[in-house]
Order: sequence, then structure tokens, then C-alpha cells
Amino acid sequence: MKKKFLDRVEILAIGSELLTPYYLDTNSLYLTQQLNDFGYEVSFKTIVGDDLENLLLCITLALDRASLLLAVGGLGPTADDLTSLAFAKVLKRKLVLNKDVLRRIRLRFKKRKIAMPSSAIKQAYLIEGAVALPNRRGTAPGQWVEAGTNKIVLLPGPPHELKPMFEEFVRPRLEAQRYKHLARKVLKTTGMTESRVESLIRDLYPRKGDVKVTLLARPGQIEVHLSAVSVKSQSQAEIKLERLRKKISVRLRDHIFSEGGQELEEVVGNLLRGKKKTLAVAESCSGGLLGHRLTNVPGSSDYFLEGVVVYSNEAKTDVLAVDPSLLAKHGAVSFEAALAMARGIRQRARASYGLAITGIAGPAGGTLRKPVGLVFVALDSSEGTEVEKNLFLGSRRQIKFQSTQKALDMLRRRLLGLSVFRGEKTKK
Amino acid sequence: MKKKFLDRVEILAIGSELLTPYYLDTNSLYLTQQLNDFGYEVSFKTIVGDDLENLLLCITLALDRASLLLAVGGLGPTADDLTSLAFAKVLKRKLVLNKDVLRRIRLRFKKRKIAMPSSAIKQAYLIEGAVALPNRRGTAPGQWVEAGTNKIVLLPGPPHELKPMFEEFVRPRLEAQRYKHLARKVLKTTGMTESRVESLIRDLYPRKGDVKVTLLARPGQIEVHLSAVSVKSQSQAEIKLERLRKKISVRLRDHIFSEGGQELEEVVGNLLRGKKKTLAVAESCSGGLLGHRLTNVPGSSDYFLEGVVVYSNEAKTDVLAVDPSLLAKHGAVSFEAALAMARGIRQRARASYGLAITGIAGPAGGTLRKPVGLVFVALDSSEGTEVEKNLFLGSRRQIKFQSTQKALDMLRRRLLGLSVFRGEKTKK
Repeated sequence: MKKKFLDRVEILAIGSELLTPYYLDTNSLYLTQQLNDFGYEVSFKTIVGDDLENLLLCITLALDRASLLLAVGGLGPTADDLTSLAFAKVLKRKLVLNKDVLRRIRLRFKKRKIAMPSSAIKQAYLIEGAVALPNRRGTAPGQWVEAGTNKIVLLPGPPHELKPMFEEFVRPRLEAQRYKHLARKVLKTTGMTESRVESLIRDLYPRKGDVKVTLLARPGQIEVHLSAVSVKSQSQAEIKLERLRKKISVRLRDHIFSEGGQELEEVVGNLLRGKKKTLAVAESCSGGLLGHRLTNVPGSSDYFLEGVVVYSNEAKTDVLAVDPSLLAKHGAVSFEAALAMARGIRQRARASYGLAITGIAGPAGGTLRKPVGLVFVALDSSEGTEVEKNLFLGSRRQIKFQSTQKALDMLRRRLLGLSVFRGEKTKK
Repeated sequence: MKKKFLDRVEILAIGSELLTPYYLDTNSLYLTQQLNDFGYEVSFKTIVGDDLENLLLCITLALDRASLLLAVGGLGPTADDLTSLAFAKVLKRKLVLNKDVLRRIRLRFKKRKIAMPSSAIKQAYLIEGAVALPNRRGTAPGQWVEAGTNKIVLLPGPPHELKPMFEEFVRPRLEAQRYKHLARKVLKTTGMTESRVESLIRDLYPRKGDVKVTLLARPGQIEVHLSAVSVKSQSQAEIKLERLRKKISVRLRDHIFSEGGQELEEVVGNLLRGKKKTLAVAESCSGGLLGHRLTNVPGSSDYFLEGVVVYSNEAKTDVLAVDPSLLAKHGAVSFEAALAMARGIRQRARASYGLAITGIAGPAGGTLRKPVGLVFVALDSSEGTEVEKNLFLGSRRQIKFQSTQKALDMLRRRLLGLSVFRGEKTKK
């Protein structure tokens, strides 16, 4: 603890809830990603509660062992928000009222037609010498503080406040001081397990430490994260990265649905918009998740017409004109029901494409012949209808997610004129 | 850092992957839950990579500030597994071959009919004086080390190895030394801002350290986390907690929707099931999220009949029989449209309750008269229809989430016979 390490970065997450069994410090993932982008690597992450004594301890230590310290949380108006106070104590500085900040906070409450509680004023007191970092999405400003060789950034805890603040006000400051260059790319795939992806590309893993491959897996989506560093220039880093990316892309082919960070729903949305096509969806076991994902994309009203969540058999018949005798004969979770639902919703909504999902998300409701995880996904268009039978593993939420991945990927493949990948799925 | 705090617990997670943008230390949630169960609270969590210098720094500090230290990870056979070595250095002890452990490791490879790699022997070298904690699911044993007033537990990183080891060998040791009891409760509220909740209960915040209140906020949901400790007994802790909980409950009244950890969609689901009522929903700007949340609850098919995502005006007219002239006159985002949608879906689905959401989730599509965040939520039942006009702040996803919170809360209030809370919302 005695010497100073000039290139060390520490993230200090502050909040008693982060020391309970319920919450993880997820902000640090975003911050690490951002820091990595311009060559900073994180050496330590510390999590401490809203406790002044412990906070003073952690701050003292962090300033001793890291030259760049990002402290997140504890900037709010309440009595247990102690971050500014603790830093002021350790740095032996005062807390000073910033009138600009106070004006902005007042304005925010005025706009919302809410009386400003007196506690809100606290957020306008900043550490002496700090630069205020405006908060476009909340009241508490961030702070940029320099103290000797230490650079300190105080950021608000809510991710939707932290992210725009970091991008607008912290990134440019850090970028100006970058000392190495890092290139990154994420290849997102669907339709293969982690072991399968790994077995296809393992022999390409680089030995040298300046280029790295990491797999990140969740059911329904395996991501290949590539990074390369160069002390010379960004383009050097990009060249190293590109060399490896090409080789991996050849192996994983059309299982890769994005290389630029987009989620599958964005990729499909852009394809639909580009081709001026429209989509309607009918969901049973996925319960609205497909519609939710599609409509998370801004501008999705350009191509997404309508969704229905038909949980009951009556709804399947009433809304989608699925023949009740079909449901009686084959059951609601069947090849035939999925097919009828996809046709039904496409016709109902007069859409170019109809997608349908019906299955058993569990944990209850499975039988020997129709176990939990059995999901039929159907795609209907003027070119014809196809149905895929799947057996997904995992929790209720994971089965819901995998069902929507499959549906989106079937549509992506249809839009791109690719054949549907069936490598690891059971076919009817 | 100079004084010793006898009741402090630190969790040290070791592994370079935990300092990338892709992985979080999730083991600490499990460990915290376990520790809380017998009265230990976690004061610090530290995350450090597989780097000897940094590891030595973190261990030295942790032994200085915490009496109980749980170190997780870095016990494996590879060159970057440095945990035992680092602890031995800091404690100034040797690493000693434990023949029992070596025999167990050999046996494990034999059973699997795999030749034991020479690197595996490393795992049989334990810190001098350590008690080996058998690993039933892997090769690396855990270690229990006492050094002065410090108790140190070394645990393997893979959760399926860590959990059984903790339960079988660590829990009983810690339980025998339990020195206090802890009770916890979470009051979840909706319909109020964080500042509002705090202003209502701040004067109840206990001064004494044995009872704690923490607020956890996200748009649409403010949680009050309560904890109480007692050195006497669990029931003493429960009594202290209950005393405070009662006072806070009186202040926050029916804004509290759960005290047992349930989410709003579970609370509403249980109410519907208990009253044998059914629900159908019509969503515009929330795009399926309401259906998704409702159907995340296992068994929701008991009461959830149907959902529609009516993004286009045509869909609103076709599916819900909303009068096109009403849409032409008032617009799709209007009091009148919400009302007609709620009635339309309830009639369509022949449900006891119909919920409808229509608004502008942004980021584009707002106007001066109808800004981003304007959302109308309507509830229809045989008792009548009510519509709430809201102006939500935040990102597209946050506006979607708040819209669904509002809808679920309106239904909760109707089911409980409570009036709709309008304290902070603009009314039409």
C-alpha cells in the first residue's frame, strides 16, 4: 500500500444494498468496457456500504494504490448518501455550494411540477475544486476531482444517469490521456451451444497476450469477444483484431448475426425496414417477450404492426381463428398449432411476416410426451410456412428468451435468404 | 487501516476475468446470504485479478480491516492460480504438502480414468496450519486458516464446488462462533419518488447501528430495506425489525405492495387467483412488457387470458374495436384511446379486468403537446373504467417499465378496494 501505481485503475461501488444478497455492482461492467476502449485496464474493484467509517477506509486506500479512481453511487439527496462528504474528508477539502448545479436541480423539479424537497439542495454541494459533471437524467451531478497525481471521478449510481454522463463528460477527459490503444469487436451468434462454438474456433485462439478471445455464453446467445492492444496506434490494434476476426467469421459463418454490437431484434428490425416489410407476432409461452424485445428498438413502429399473447385456447381461436378441433386433436403445444397461429396472426394483421411461438415454459405443466422446454416456433409469409420444434433447457425465463431468439433468427434467415439452421435442434 | 474491527467480514473474489466487462462476482451473493443467516454482515467486497503483487496488497489490507475473510478463486492447478501462495507470503507461513489431499486428488483422476497432470499436485500444497476443506465436486480443496484474531476461509471459484463445500464444512464452523443474529425485510413501493419516500420516513431512521434502513430506487419502484441485529437471539432481532417495520408501514401505507420479496406482477397474480378473476391486456408503447412480466410468474395461465400489442392504429381498430374516428379526433395517445382499448380488450377476451397502455416511449415521436413519456393507462372492469395520465421520465425502456408498473398498481388497488394514488401524477 505504500507505493503509488500510476497506471492502476480502481472502481469503487458504494451502496449498502451491494453488500446484501440481492444486488450486484453491474455498473462496473459498463465502466470497464468504456475504460478498456481507450486502453485503461481495471486493477481493483471494491464494494462498500453507506457507512462513513468504512467509506473513508476504502477511499484512503484507493487513492494510495490507484491513480484513477471511479467512485459510483452515494451522490443522492438522502442521509445515507455520503460519497461527497467522505471524499471531502479524505482530501481535506470543503463541500461548496455550486449555484449552477442548484439552479439546474430547481429547474428539474419545476419542469415536473413537483415541489423541491429541501434534501435535494445537498446535491448541489460539491467537493472544493471539483468540476461538476451535468446529469441529464437526474438531479445529482457527477464530479471530476484532481488531487496530486490522483484523478477522481464521482458518478451517480443509477445506470441511466451514469452512462450518458460518462459518455459526454468523462470519456473525452480520459481519452485525452490515453496511453495505449485497444480495439474490440463482439461477434454474436445464435443456434449453437458454447461447446460447439468453442470447438469450431479453439485452434484459432492466439498465444500472444496482445490479442484476446473470450466467449460469453447465455442460453440462446453465444458471443465471441475479441480484443487487441497496441502501444503504437489505434489502426495497429484494429489490424491485429481484423486478422483474427476474419478467420473466426469463416468458421462461424451465418450463425453470426451481428458484429457491431446489435441485438438480434435490431438486426431483424433493420432488415425489415430495409425491405419495407412488416411483422406481426403471436405468442403463447413467451408471453409478450417477443413483442417487448421488438419494441425495445426505437422506431420499431415502422415495421412492427401487432402482437398477441394468446395464453388461453379461447384466445387462440378467437383472435387467430385457430380451428378448435385442431387444438383438441394436437394440443396447443404442437406443430399444427404453431403453424395455424403464424398464419392466423399474419392474416389478421395483414403483415408480410407472421411469427408464432407455442410451448411449455415450466416449471410446471410438462408431461413425458411434452416436457418443459418443448417449444414450436413458426414463420409464415407469402413464400410459405415453416415450423421448428425445439427442446430448450433452463429456467422459465431462459426458455422464454430462447424461444424468442429462435423466432427472430428464423425471420433473419428468411430475410437474408439463408436456410434455417437445424444442427442442434430436433426436427419433427 | 490501522485498527482492527472484530466484527467485520470481507469477501475477496480473485480472478482476472472478474475485471473484464463480461463477468461479475456472483458467488458473493450466495456467500452473503449464508453469512447473513447466522448474523454476519459483509462490510467489504474486493475484486482483484490473478496478479501476485495486487493480490498481496489486497490480502494484507483485508487481514487488517476484517476479522473474517472469505477468499474465493485462484485455487486451481494452473500458473495463474496464486491464492495459496499469496496468503502464505502475507502470513509468513510455508506451503506444505498434505498427503491426504494428494491421495484424494489422485483417486479423483483414477476414478475418471484420466492420467493426473503433474500440475495437479500443486493443489495438495496447503498453507501451514490450514485445515483442508474437502472438495466433493472438484480437485482443489478449500482451506480454513486461523492467524491471530483473523479467520480466513479459502474457497474454490466454481459455484458448484463452492456451495457444497461451504454448506458442509464452513457453515458449521461459523455457526459455532455466531455472535449475533440478523433479521431482514424489504418493503417494495410504487407510485412515489425516492425523495418522497424518504421525506415520509426519514424521521424514523434509527440512530443506533443495530437497526438499519436503506432505500433502493429505480424509476417506478422504491424499496425500503430493513435489517436488525441482536447479540441475544434471532427473535430479539425480529422484534426490533418488526417495531420499525410497523412504523414505516403506517407512513407508506398502501404504497407498499409487498413485504415478502414478491414483485408487483406476483402480487397482482396472487390477488387475481385468490379472487378467481381473469385479466387481459392491451399494450401500445409498452410493446408486450406487461404481458411478459405477467407471464414470468409460474402458473400465470390461471388468470392471464390474453394480451395484444396494438402498435398500429389499424390494429387498435381491428383487434379492439376502437372507433377510427376517436383515434382521428384524439390521437392514439389519448385518454379516450386508452379507455376504449381497456374496454375493447376486456370484451374481446371476456376477462374480469382489462388493462390498456398507450403512450410515447421515445426517444423520438414526442411533440410539445404530447411529449416523450406521456402515457395513458386505463383499467376496465364491471365496476367501471378509470384512466390515469402520466408523464414518465427516463429512457425508452424505463418509460416502458414505469407504464407497466402503473398498470399493475392500478389493478392491485382495484383488487384491494383502494383508491388510486395520484399524489405525483398530473391528472387530466
